[in-house]
Amino acid sequence: MAAAADHSIKLFELVLEDGRSASPFVWRIRYALAHKGLTCEAVKLSFTGIAATFGGRFKTVPVIEHGATLMAESWDIAEYLDRAFPDRPRLFSGPAELAMVRLMDAWFTSEVIRKMFRLYVKDVHDAAHPEDRAYFRQSREKNLKGETLESFTAERATYLPALRTSLAPLRAHLAKFAYLGGDTPNYADYIGLSAFHWAASVATLPLLAPDDTLRAWLDRGFALYGGMGRDARINPLFERG
Amino acid sequence: MAAAADHSIKLFELVLEDGRSASPFVWRIRYALAHKGLTCEAVKLSFTGIAATFGGRFKTVPVIEHGATLMAESWDIAEYLDRAFPDRPRLFSGPAELAMVRLMDAWFTSEVIRKMFRLYVKDVHDAAHPEDRAYFRQSREKNLKGETLESFTAERATYLPALRTSLAPLRAHLAKFAYLGGDTPNYADYIGLSAFHWAASVATLPLLAPDDTLRAWLDRGFALYGGMGRDARINPLFERG
Repeated sequence: MAAAADHSIKLFELVLEDGRSASPFVWRIRYALAHKGLTCEAVKLSFTGIAATFGGRFKTVPVIEHGATLMAESWDIAEYLDRAFPDRPRLFSGPAELAMVRLMDAWFTSEVIRKMFRLYVKDVHDAAHPEDRAYFRQSREKNLKGETLESFTAERATYLPALRTSLAPLRAHLAKFAYLGGDTPNYADYIGLSAFHWAASVATLPLLAPDDTLRAWLDRGFALYGGMGRDARINPLFERG
Repeated sequence: MAAAADHSIKLFELVLEDGRSASPFVWRIRYALAHKGLTCEAVKLSFTGIAATFGGRFKTVPVIEHGATLMAESWDIAEYLDRAFPDRPRLFSGPAELAMVRLMDAWFTSEVIRKMFRLYVKDVHDAAHPEDRAYFRQSREKNLKGETLESFTAERATYLPALRTSLAPLRAHLAKFAYLGGDTPNYADYIGLSAFHWAASVATLPLLAPDDTLRAWLDRGFALYGGMGRDARINPLFERG
């Protein structure tokens, strides 16, 4: 594809008060674009800005705009990028790798990301744009059946052991491979790394023990593509040794 | 490869008193051979027969013999089969699919198979060749720090809910795909199906609720390759509705 086409991609993302990208699903697409060597124009939105920007058509980011295509949902976007830019490095070598990464996502989202949200939902509130906080609290507390963010997270440290245990398959795999994808990173790495980017951007409680063997993979993954993730701090993820 | 070469494969497997194959890892290789359209001569061993047969070189099955090659460990064998029979349907389309299936195995073995062993260790004992039972009990109870198989499994029904919950990623994935591998089965399916074959061959306590949505995948998977798994009963896996 011509460079002009590449630069015609807009990525709508969600940012915190400090400007950091704050959605693990947007991070997936940031990685996907970098994997394919595509640049984009980032459009930074607040939580409440999403519905306003798309007139209610999309309620979540990532959203990309590419020519006449306006599309939400990170999986749809990832698959679209392989179709739209077939001559660029592929995100998925074929249907079997795609299916396997989908399975990894089913596991990782239900076992890990869900636990992370439970730990960090109040931290997201506190780090959000001030104009977003009332909306965020109201929408999240509705899902908590009226419980406040404060009471929901009061005992959150007690959930850390289960979360750390749930990462065991990643540790076992990364004892054999440099990346989840093997010698080189694939979309499973981006799914995993994106969740840690998101956690690192809001966490006031460290997620991992100081000697967690995941650190080597996180260091490698955050440094990918010229350090695209360098602005996401890795230190908040780790307890002090 | 010539048909003669195909038929030169011997698969050493572990069988129960009733002759059924009793190792989830042997089942993986049974599926792998079928996937590649290879036939083999099955050599049925008891637990205590394994060390005797290989003079202590191998303590576990599967073991395959192919020409001068004698090899244990299901993963080594699976990768060997793709190298030795490159013109047959591949088990792994490339390194990314291989790495992803390895990751699936790291999750499935630690989260699911380990829980299954906890449920069924006494059932394996009871279904084993009579000559194996003393050895099996002694070796397993040693790992249980002296606890008997009976006391270890006395409250086993209380572990069923956690095991069923741990299968949620499979259910989520199979709501979108016919197989874990997508439209067609891959080695991740064989890893999963093999564990259920093994459980079905020994279970005196049903593993799954009558309406578990995994049933459609299990039916499809057990019927693969001309019903190679038809001799493994599917009904013992399910509570009566």
